[in-house]
Amino acid sequence: MASPGTSGHLSGRDGVEIVTIGTELLLGATLEGNGTWLSHRLGEVGIKVHRRVTVGDDVHAIAAAIAHGLERHGAVICTGGLGPTRDDVTRNAVARVFGRELVLDEGWLEVIRRRFQDRGLDMPAVNRTQAELPAGATLLPNERGTAPGIALEDERLGLVILLPGVPREMQWLTEQHVLPLLRARGFGRAAPVISRTLRTTGISESALAERIEDVVDSFAPLTLAYLPAGTGEDLRLTCWGDLSPDEAARALDRAEAALRERLGDLVYGAGDDDLAEIVLRDLRARRLTLAVAESCTGGLVAKRLTDPAGASDVFLAGIVAYSNVAKRLFLDVQESTLLEHGAVSESVASEMAAGVCRRTGAPCGIAITGIAGPAGGTSDKPVGTVCIATHVCGETRARTLKLPGVRAEVRERSAQAALAWLRKRVLTERP
Amino acid sequence: MASPGTSGHLSGRDGVEIVTIGTELLLGATLEGNGTWLSHRLGEVGIKVHRRVTVGDDVHAIAAAIAHGLERHGAVICTGGLGPTRDDVTRNAVARVFGRELVLDEGWLEVIRRRFQDRGLDMPAVNRTQAELPAGATLLPNERGTAPGIALEDERLGLVILLPGVPREMQWLTEQHVLPLLRARGFGRAAPVISRTLRTTGISESALAERIEDVVDSFAPLTLAYLPAGTGEDLRLTCWGDLSPDEAARALDRAEAALRERLGDLVYGAGDDDLAEIVLRDLRARRLTLAVAESCTGGLVAKRLTDPAGASDVFLAGIVAYSNVAKRLFLDVQESTLLEHGAVSESVASEMAAGVCRRTGAPCGIAITGIAGPAGGTSDKPVGTVCIATHVCGETRARTLKLPGVRAEVRERSAQAALAWLRKRVLTERP
Repeated sequence: MASPGTSGHLSGRDGVEIVTIGTELLLGATLEGNGTWLSHRLGEVGIKVHRRVTVGDDVHAIAAAIAHGLERHGAVICTGGLGPTRDDVTRNAVARVFGRELVLDEGWLEVIRRRFQDRGLDMPAVNRTQAELPAGATLLPNERGTAPGIALEDERLGLVILLPGVPREMQWLTEQHVLPLLRARGFGRAAPVISRTLRTTGISESALAERIEDVVDSFAPLTLAYLPAGTGEDLRLTCWGDLSPDEAARALDRAEAALRERLGDLVYGAGDDDLAEIVLRDLRARRLTLAVAESCTGGLVAKRLTDPAGASDVFLAGIVAYSNVAKRLFLDVQESTLLEHGAVSESVASEMAAGVCRRTGAPCGIAITGIAGPAGGTSDKPVGTVCIATHVCGETRARTLKLPGVRAEVRERSAQAALAWLRKRVLTERP
Repeated sequence: MASPGTSGHLSGRDGVEIVTIGTELLLGATLEGNGTWLSHRLGEVGIKVHRRVTVGDDVHAIAAAIAHGLERHGAVICTGGLGPTRDDVTRNAVARVFGRELVLDEGWLEVIRRRFQDRGLDMPAVNRTQAELPAGATLLPNERGTAPGIALEDERLGLVILLPGVPREMQWLTEQHVLPLLRARGFGRAAPVISRTLRTTGISESALAERIEDVVDSFAPLTLAYLPAGTGEDLRLTCWGDLSPDEAARALDRAEAALRERLGDLVYGAGDDDLAEIVLRDLRARRLTLAVAESCTGGLVAKRLTDPAGASDVFLAGIVAYSNVAKRLFLDVQESTLLEHGAVSESVASEMAAGVCRRTGAPCGIAITGIAGPAGGTSDKPVGTVCIATHVCGETRARTLKLPGVRAEVRERSAQAALAWLRKRVLTERP
């Protein structure tokens, strides 16, 4: 064992390396999201990531990446390669680097067995390897899967943490075990990187920039990033750790206030707020209920309204009226309206919105009918033509949008535009 | 200069390392997409990527990553750090590794100047650095930006290629210059990497492994990867370029046939097939139509059925009956059934499926009612309790699932299980 004075990497505690493991990653078949998520999360708590390395499911390559990471910075976090099948060799690689045997953890084996039993299944024999750890390692219990996290320390070599590659398991283990463990070892003393995001919809990046560009200089040392989010633009303010937490919070408050003043109700939320959630919150505050009638979006608006729990006090029903028959049957759209104006028309959208409100008794309604493509466009109504209608307390309004993008984008933009319009009407007409 | 016999990495030409550069990447502020794209594109033309490394805008870290990559594999492709500002130091790092000076390329400086002139602007002085190359390097002209690609070779050290980090510039340079250059140097002579994916649902990874593990050995040199896909497991067979294209196709055919024989209708598709699309295809082939009634999935099944274009000949309507009122109103669920069995019950699911079929005239139907959580669970019916029903040509069946996971997972798994069950019934009962 080296004396503390000679083990430079142990005195540092100034950051970690990340090793992401999986042949699929090197093939570019899977986007490497775990490394990005971990980097971001560690940065938030002031732990620097010095380097990320991606290697395949190869015990030599994994061992080399871990060993070099330890030499350089004394702390390595790995994701992936902890599954039950034979291509999962991360445990073996780290055991080799530390010169330890793999030993069975009877307690965890029992946990795995019980999880299978609870689902009425016998534990397959291959899962046994998921209860094997390098001798002397600490098991980090995983509530979300059968592969536990593993922490292994050695004064000479440093600290290695192994996490499964399934994102929700990796993220849960990071929050529950890895961050506390790293903090206890003295990592994360630097000022954290702090970000704040404002979400806008209904305005282009360049139009947004024109509105705010002249105040952005005053934000320094904060930086502002424009992030296209598919159904709008996000604005991210970041303090890169050069202010104290208090100063950072004040600077972020000032910058956020300046942006909100310039942008008004183009800003619909912050962080990862979803517009559908904001709409539910605004309606709930007014004791209003909502029903939805969808044609081209095919259930997307209803799905978004029910993604968060607890929509049921506001959201009564959604009708996916994909066929004209369904539009008549469930929404009372008149056959004459369909014949005269076509299914994609403001008249049909209006009858859909009014119909779903009348049928359900909801005071507020949204309807969407359009041509999402790729087929179905005409010269009059090209792909991207979408009619949306909103119904608020007795009054129905409709408008026609010409949306860019492929099918999925047209659907997403239609849903977002309809939600944004309903919200604006509710805020204005029922303040 | 070492003799060819001693420079192992130059005789190899069997692959490259990728170094992606940018402090934003290590902060997790930017998703690392360039490495994934490059890996995929190189794999397609038979060039193996041995490792990816991500480092910040730090000349020492970049130089170390390049030097180690060259030591291991003799060829490194870098992206990022070629901009005009002072944090862009990739040129300096590679010049240091090769022991060369940076020299100005007058021709490229003129190109940059002209591009600015064409836009009526003077070239900012900082852009001059973008015309500087390590002595002896080859400039790869960039039509899409001011930073050229750079290739630098040395018999002793190997080959380094530098590309800008802007994705569209990096991708254009790869197609125009990098792939031809690598081919001319003998890379990619191997047959391309070919993959084939089979999609399964309704079986755990370990149970899947038990069923097929003993035939997997016979697949060599193909490899098999288990990829959890959230609503099932994908099996990816890969031929790593050690067979001719014809041999590879035959080997993949044999392995696929063996897997399909073992797994039967657990395999629902290949590639990126979505189960909803497969269901539509199977129903279309039988001239059957479909209607859907959803409670806890809130429109997810309808959305999936309408994600691809052209569902309208099969999919008639979806009812998102989130409230009990909506279940009675649109689906004729009896109040007595709701009172007696509760909204989450096989009886209610059955009435929902039969009701939506009766109302729309569709011979096939799906209904889902359950507790997706996080609230709403009881000791009798904990979170994850989901009742699904299928209706096929006059006969309704229902079953209860106990699904693991958080809200979004319970919803996704419910939708997948209901679609899989309907498909199985249609294939069996209407062969």
